[in-house]
Amino acid sequence: MARRFQHAALVGKYQADGIRPLLQEIAHFLVRQGLEVSFEHHTAASTGVTDFDALTIDQIGQHCDLAVVVGGDGTMLGIARELARHNLPLVGINQGRLGFITDVPIGQYREALAPMIAGDYEEDFRAMLEGEVWRDGERIFEGLSLNDVVVSRGATASMVELRVDIGDEFIANLRADGLILASPTGSTAYSLSAGGPILHPGIAGWVLVPIASHTLSNRPIVLPDSGPVRITVVAGRDASANFDMQGIASLLHGDQVRVQRSAHKVRFLHPRGWSYYATLRRKLRWYDGVV
Amino acid sequence: MARRFQHAALVGKYQADGIRPLLQEIAHFLVRQGLEVSFEHHTAASTGVTDFDALTIDQIGQHCDLAVVVGGDGTMLGIARELARHNLPLVGINQGRLGFITDVPIGQYREALAPMIAGDYEEDFRAMLEGEVWRDGERIFEGLSLNDVVVSRGATASMVELRVDIGDEFIANLRADGLILASPTGSTAYSLSAGGPILHPGIAGWVLVPIASHTLSNRPIVLPDSGPVRITVVAGRDASANFDMQGIASLLHGDQVRVQRSAHKVRFLHPRGWSYYATLRRKLRWYDGVV
Amino acid sequence: MARRFQHAALVGKYQADGIRPLLQEIAHFLVRQGLEVSFEHHTAASTGVTDFDALTIDQIGQHCDLAVVVGGDGTMLGIARELARHNLPLVGINQGRLGFITDVPIGQYREALAPMIAGDYEEDFRAMLEGEVWRDGERIFEGLSLNDVVVSRGATASMVELRVDIGDEFIANLRADGLILASPTGSTAYSLSAGGPILHPGIAGWVLVPIASHTLSNRPIVLPDSGPVRITVVAGRDASANFDMQGIASLLHGDQVRVQRSAHKVRFLHPRGWSYYATLRRKLRWYDGVV
Amino acid sequence: MARRFQHAALVGKYQADGIRPLLQEIAHFLVRQGLEVSFEHHTAASTGVTDFDALTIDQIGQHCDLAVVVGGDGTMLGIARELARHNLPLVGINQGRLGFITDVPIGQYREALAPMIAGDYEEDFRAMLEGEVWRDGERIFEGLSLNDVVVSRGATASMVELRVDIGDEFIANLRADGLILASPTGSTAYSLSAGGPILHPGIAGWVLVPIASHTLSNRPIVLPDSGPVRITVVAGRDASANFDMQGIASLLHGDQVRVQRSAHKVRFLHPRGWSYYATLRRKLRWYDGVV
Repeated sequence: MARRFQHAALVGKYQADGIRPLLQEIAHFLVRQGLEVSFEHHTAASTGVTDFDALTIDQIGQHCDLAVVVGGDGTMLGIARELARHNLPLVGINQGRLGFITDVPIGQYREALAPMIAGDYEEDFRAMLEGEVWRDGERIFEGLSLNDVVVSRGATASMVELRVDIGDEFIANLRADGLILASPTGSTAYSLSAGGPILHPGIAGWVLVPIASHTLSNRPIVLPDSGPVRITVVAGRDASANFDMQGIASLLHGDQVRVQRSAHKVRFLHPRGWSYYATLRRKLRWYDGVV
Repeated sequence: MARRFQHAALVGKYQADGIRPLLQEIAHFLVRQGLEVSFEHHTAASTGVTDFDALTIDQIGQHCDLAVVVGGDGTMLGIARELARHNLPLVGINQGRLGFITDVPIGQYREALAPMIAGDYEEDFRAMLEGEVWRDGERIFEGLSLNDVVVSRGATASMVELRVDIGDEFIANLRADGLILASPTGSTAYSLSAGGPILHPGIAGWVLVPIASHTLSNRPIVLPDSGPVRITVVAGRDASANFDMQGIASLLHGDQVRVQRSAHKVRFLHPRGWSYYATLRRKLRWYDGVV
Repeated sequence: MARRFQHAALVGKYQADGIRPLLQEIAHFLVRQGLEVSFEHHTAASTGVTDFDALTIDQIGQHCDLAVVVGGDGTMLGIARELARHNLPLVGINQGRLGFITDVPIGQYREALAPMIAGDYEEDFRAMLEGEVWRDGERIFEGLSLNDVVVSRGATASMVELRVDIGDEFIANLRADGLILASPTGSTAYSLSAGGPILHPGIAGWVLVPIASHTLSNRPIVLPDSGPVRITVVAGRDASANFDMQGIASLLHGDQVRVQRSAHKVRFLHPRGWSYYATLRRKLRWYDGVV
Repeated sequence: MARRFQHAALVGKYQADGIRPLLQEIAHFLVRQGLEVSFEHHTAASTGVTDFDALTIDQIGQHCDLAVVVGGDGTMLGIARELARHNLPLVGINQGRLGFITDVPIGQYREALAPMIAGDYEEDFRAMLEGEVWRDGERIFEGLSLNDVVVSRGATASMVELRVDIGDEFIANLRADGLILASPTGSTAYSLSAGGPILHPGIAGWVLVPIASHTLSNRPIVLPDSGPVRITVVAGRDASANFDMQGIASLLHGDQVRVQRSAHKVRFLHPRGWSYYATLRRKLRWYDGVV
């Protein structure tokens, strides 16, 4: 049995309506469970909550041993990346339709959190991608992704041509709308829409998925994540690199996007009995036929 | 047997290296076949050819009864649209790898053109799409497409949400990278890359192909081209509409792209024995296995 | 406004539990609406209903002017084919999950049927495929399909090789698990599972969809249904031809499956306000995201 | 530098025309390189070669330290499985179009083999799948696969319903034409035709690919190969299990196909400079556009 937690940080989706009373309710619940509770400082500021300490991400990393995140997969994606280097476990409470990684429904957070705080939970580690953009020998951008790194054509270009290498090996030259390099976590997001396979989080790899490739045989390819992947812009106006579709860098011809597996992993906690496959079945509606 | 042609307009890809002597050679060949020959005025200007009349598109429409186009599918796409309302037949001579619609190899133009000029050819009619962009009750853009009308997300947006109607009927709301409405001619271009089917030119329809749709069951759908299709931007930053990937309009929320079948058809001429299916086999390499 | 119907034939899914009281209830409802009512003879026999006339398909074709079918899409498929040459309109009442073509829910049949009997309905015509199998110059099998004609490899063969022609033109040689030729109605059935597009019933064409083709560029192709399609078995053990997955013929090398558009169309009636696209949205769950 | 080989076994595609002089030529070349040479006994019998020892697979495993295989990927697949437990390295000489795993062209075997015999080569390890069929608590079939295990519907059935579990976890119930569980080696074979991704041989996983799944969101899923996969037949007539499409077992309802990673790996040797990605580019024609 794992250890009990001492100090939880509460993070909420700032823009959500009526989130203030909800966060306060959860905070008081956590206090009653014997935890010290602090608010992530942006969450505190935007909700106007003042009866709990407001901590920066770094302070959370130093003082807290659990992050409770209220929102959807997008909110979780952002905070998980920020907290990644602190190795803090995260629990996701979802206000709307359950997500792939935020799976405690708002109406059942008490029953779900109580045993987890006591140490009864499932741990779920997720690999992250560390990306850099290089131009003329200089690193001009850095980004961390839990889902994916995407290199896309500009809106007025008919395609982007990309050269892809892994380690010392040339993979292919590709003309397409773009290219997705997705982690297992990202394999059920944009990558799936573009025709990629689902990757179980236990796979030590990532998947390279071309978007609307000119060459029909340029199929998704699953690669070991041991070596860095380099994506070089060969042709096409206004290309860009996107990190989790939240950070973006403009690219010129010759620019190179380098991606390697991050030394940090995200650590999600789920209620006992959580199942990766049950989440797939629910999200992808495998329990009944679509047709 | 069809009638012999009297007056050919010669059109060339302006940027191509060494196209001047080639165009002159073809022009003199046509003269020897008994035709009057004029140059499309941009072609004349960019190549510096002065020993033939230079005619504008409208003048070509009035005076010529055949257009001989030297270039690839992209060159043909542009000139075919411009000449569309004049109902002029077009022949394509291809300098590089044969295209879907430009299929006389440069090395065999004499053998191919001679019988065609005498009236021995295959006619191949292709439908076109007429697009308009409407904002607040005003038409702000018009475009003609031989291949497709494409509505896409902006580079920094994660998706665009589009509402699609046909005639009086609502089809669907769609969240995706974008949406392609392709003619049979366009079905072997971008639409094919995005997962669309091939449409024989004899099909009186077009195909609606979502690009990286969030909903996995949003599959390509082939619709009769009798009613207009309306695509309305519901959400997503910096969306745009592209006509044959050559004309582009920026779109705001609420803007509507309306597409109907053009009253004009493009009329390609091919050497006797030309076959649509043989072109597919050659271009898609069906003659041997890809794997 | 269309004419009122006089004589309805009632057809039920024979195997369904408890269908007898349901059919009798519907029959009495139809009588109260002023219609003469007969039972299709197999339906009568299997349910033991004796208080209504039992008619063969031919007798139904001669005497009835409406068929009311209780069951799912599979039941409707079978009876629609049998009644096809009689041009009888069909209404589908669905006991389970609504189908693509049987769309009156059992709980609302009264409200739905009353106005339809009075002549207030939507008509929906569907093309059918007429198939024949030829061996050594002899026709050895005939089949009619509303959905599709499927030529498949045998269970112990790794693939079947098929030659496909349309009219006088050769399309392609294909090595695959099989090949589906689907009507617009069939385009949302097996064909969709194999990667085919959706075809609106207004399209005068059918779609040729390879199943697990060895050549990755052998994509679905939509063809005009004006000319016959011929599929010849070139190689592969134990191939077979399936008509709506309900009639099957074993095929030898050299056997040819010929398919042409049937002169008959199926005529479905739907409640006023019925919409093809609404059916797609419901069946394919376009109203919410799958992911 | 690896050690020099001492004793090569020569294996040929028995049915190939004119293979006898070719095999003898290769045998004498190997002898001139200082190797002892034996013939696999079936190869010897079918070619009538008597001037070299004929050895069974087990004798080859005991006495030889290299297998030279002349044929295509299919020939190699068969012999690699047979030799798997002996950990013997294999080199493939290809008579026809180069394969994914047999990559020494017949015209260049001398230049390719000489340095390899001296120890200069690339090693390429490939995982195998061990399958068993269980019925009523009894194991009724065993099979080894380098490519894939495939469970398929019978020819007259419209689908098979399968329940899939991995380790202790339920994955999904699936209605489809069938299901492929492919190794990285098999990911470029049948699995690719059915829509699966390419898996690099360095991935410690396999991919589960439904064939023509009824549920459109049943997408390929890449799973760690650490736990056994169990596929149980729930419904559908005449289902069967195929191992590399070379060994087949008929399945009844309730039968279970269990697959685990084999303790043995196949060990291919390639000429120095061989590249997995170059093989993909060549076989999938990535060097030029298909369209």
